[in-house]
Amino acid sequence: MILIVALNPALDITHHVPGADWSGVNRPTEVHARPGGKGLNVARTLRSIGAEVLVMGFTGGVTGEGVKSALSELGVPTAFTPIAGQTRRTFAVVDAHRRDTALFNEPGPPVGPDEYAEFSVMYRNALAASTAVVLSGSLPPGLSPDTYAELSTMATVSGVPTVLDAHGDALLRGAAARPSIVKPNLAELEALAGRRLSTQRGVDRRAVAVAAQELRAAGPQAVVVTLGAEGLWATTDDGDWLAVPPAQAVGNPTGAGDAVAAGLAHGLVLGRSWEERLRHAVALGTASIAAPVAGEFQHADYTQVLAEVTVNRAEAR
Amino acid sequence: MILIVALNPALDITHHVPGADWSGVNRPTEVHARPGGKGLNVARTLRSIGAEVLVMGFTGGVTGEGVKSALSELGVPTAFTPIAGQTRRTFAVVDAHRRDTALFNEPGPPVGPDEYAEFSVMYRNALAASTAVVLSGSLPPGLSPDTYAELSTMATVSGVPTVLDAHGDALLRGAAARPSIVKPNLAELEALAGRRLSTQRGVDRRAVAVAAQELRAAGPQAVVVTLGAEGLWATTDDGDWLAVPPAQAVGNPTGAGDAVAAGLAHGLVLGRSWEERLRHAVALGTASIAAPVAGEFQHADYTQVLAEVTVNRAEAR
Repeated sequence: MILIVALNPALDITHHVPGADWSGVNRPTEVHARPGGKGLNVARTLRSIGAEVLVMGFTGGVTGEGVKSALSELGVPTAFTPIAGQTRRTFAVVDAHRRDTALFNEPGPPVGPDEYAEFSVMYRNALAASTAVVLSGSLPPGLSPDTYAELSTMATVSGVPTVLDAHGDALLRGAAARPSIVKPNLAELEALAGRRLSTQRGVDRRAVAVAAQELRAAGPQAVVVTLGAEGLWATTDDGDWLAVPPAQAVGNPTGAGDAVAAGLAHGLVLGRSWEERLRHAVALGTASIAAPVAGEFQHADYTQVLAEVTVNRAEAR
Repeated sequence: MILIVALNPALDITHHVPGADWSGVNRPTEVHARPGGKGLNVARTLRSIGAEVLVMGFTGGVTGEGVKSALSELGVPTAFTPIAGQTRRTFAVVDAHRRDTALFNEPGPPVGPDEYAEFSVMYRNALAASTAVVLSGSLPPGLSPDTYAELSTMATVSGVPTVLDAHGDALLRGAAARPSIVKPNLAELEALAGRRLSTQRGVDRRAVAVAAQELRAAGPQAVVVTLGAEGLWATTDDGDWLAVPPAQAVGNPTGAGDAVAAGLAHGLVLGRSWEERLRHAVALGTASIAAPVAGEFQHADYTQVLAEVTVNRAEAR
């Protein structure tokens, strides 16, 4: 079972409006409410490729109930720790006429020390049955920036490999706890490195290689950087790799990085080589872009892209 | 106990955003989720002035649970009939910089014949303990436009007076069932009459008097028309009345009509004269405008306005 830690899940509400009136009353033609947040996208992707998963984290209030019941309908098992606060909502207004989307992200609910302690006990118990842990997404208010480092260390002590997908301080401190893989995107790696890693002509692979190596030196066993349409850069104990999708995918890039994290965790559990891990991760990420909803993809797209991904041992150019 | 029928309640979500970016990511500085819809505003106002109430109608899904738990926190008793559909949300983006509000109103959930039948039995039972019924707000999809007529007739058969606040076909058909009071606003009365009832100089009281008399001839014992800042026009079995607030109130007019309906129902139950009924109804409506949230008001405002309302027997001018 792959244990997915989603500390700050959300209920994602989407209103489709043909030509929004920002000063008046709108009647959306289509309304969706889905469990959201990076960890839940990872869980849904893993579930779709047949992996056993368990989602842990915090939920509260009726929005939290909404997240739980929606995950249950999707067949994703959960063991959330209840909190006094209300699980956050995100609200998206998709304007088909203007081809524009406005996002309104509520702040996460605060998590108190007792609530974290309760989660921590459940997490430790769940590790015994876990083949990998994915730590993904933002930390809710009230939790220490060392939270991912603590959870990663607990997993390591239990002999469970860890994939960490976070940003900023939570990523930096988590990386120091020596997780199996950290998966920043280009912007997150740039923020850590404190310098640009791309030029007007695109990603500067040599600069990415150096920054990834610096991050790896800080603790993690491997660093996989998502480069958007240019694929993945991986700095591992088996050298550097570049995995490139067949052609630029058109669609919704939200959640593509989560699909990559799912592919990496799955490959880790199956004992795949880095070459195969990266091939599957790129294929999942690319297939997810073609699907309109984050966390979903068509299996036909996955299979097709899988045959067309190029994975090569890389030299920084 | 005053029985309030809210067939299509809502969870009203408000995001306060300082300068919305309609093409980007916004982080609201303030988030509110409140029970909404006209019937629930009536219930909250009645509860605030010390009336015993019971709210009936339909709720479904986690949004419905949200409505119920929020009403419970406000001390408003409910006996909703569960439905398979999801209670609707309304979403408001309040932009303090642009002094603008965008509203996104989800469609109501469909109500099936079995669900209506179950409600109908509960409603009939509740009538035995009711001193008045308020039928307020839109009908959800699936219900006949005769619904308010049926519910009003059932109340009349049980000897319970009825206040009807609806629009269009539901109002017209409901009015034919001879409720005690129907309470259209000017726009609703214009829609029924099929003609304008105001000029550039303001409300045409003579035209309102004629249209109200026409509506009263269709069935109801009294017609009370809300005229915004110009107060209330009432056509009753005790003649025509005009009730005028002291000065134009500044604030949020949403829910002012619901406060008026609450005042009328309360006056009906207390056996107040039309003069006193209208005085209290105007005072509640005016006090509710000064409060930022629909369904709420300050008692000091209510008391102050009450002393300043002018109520006169009216001749159409």
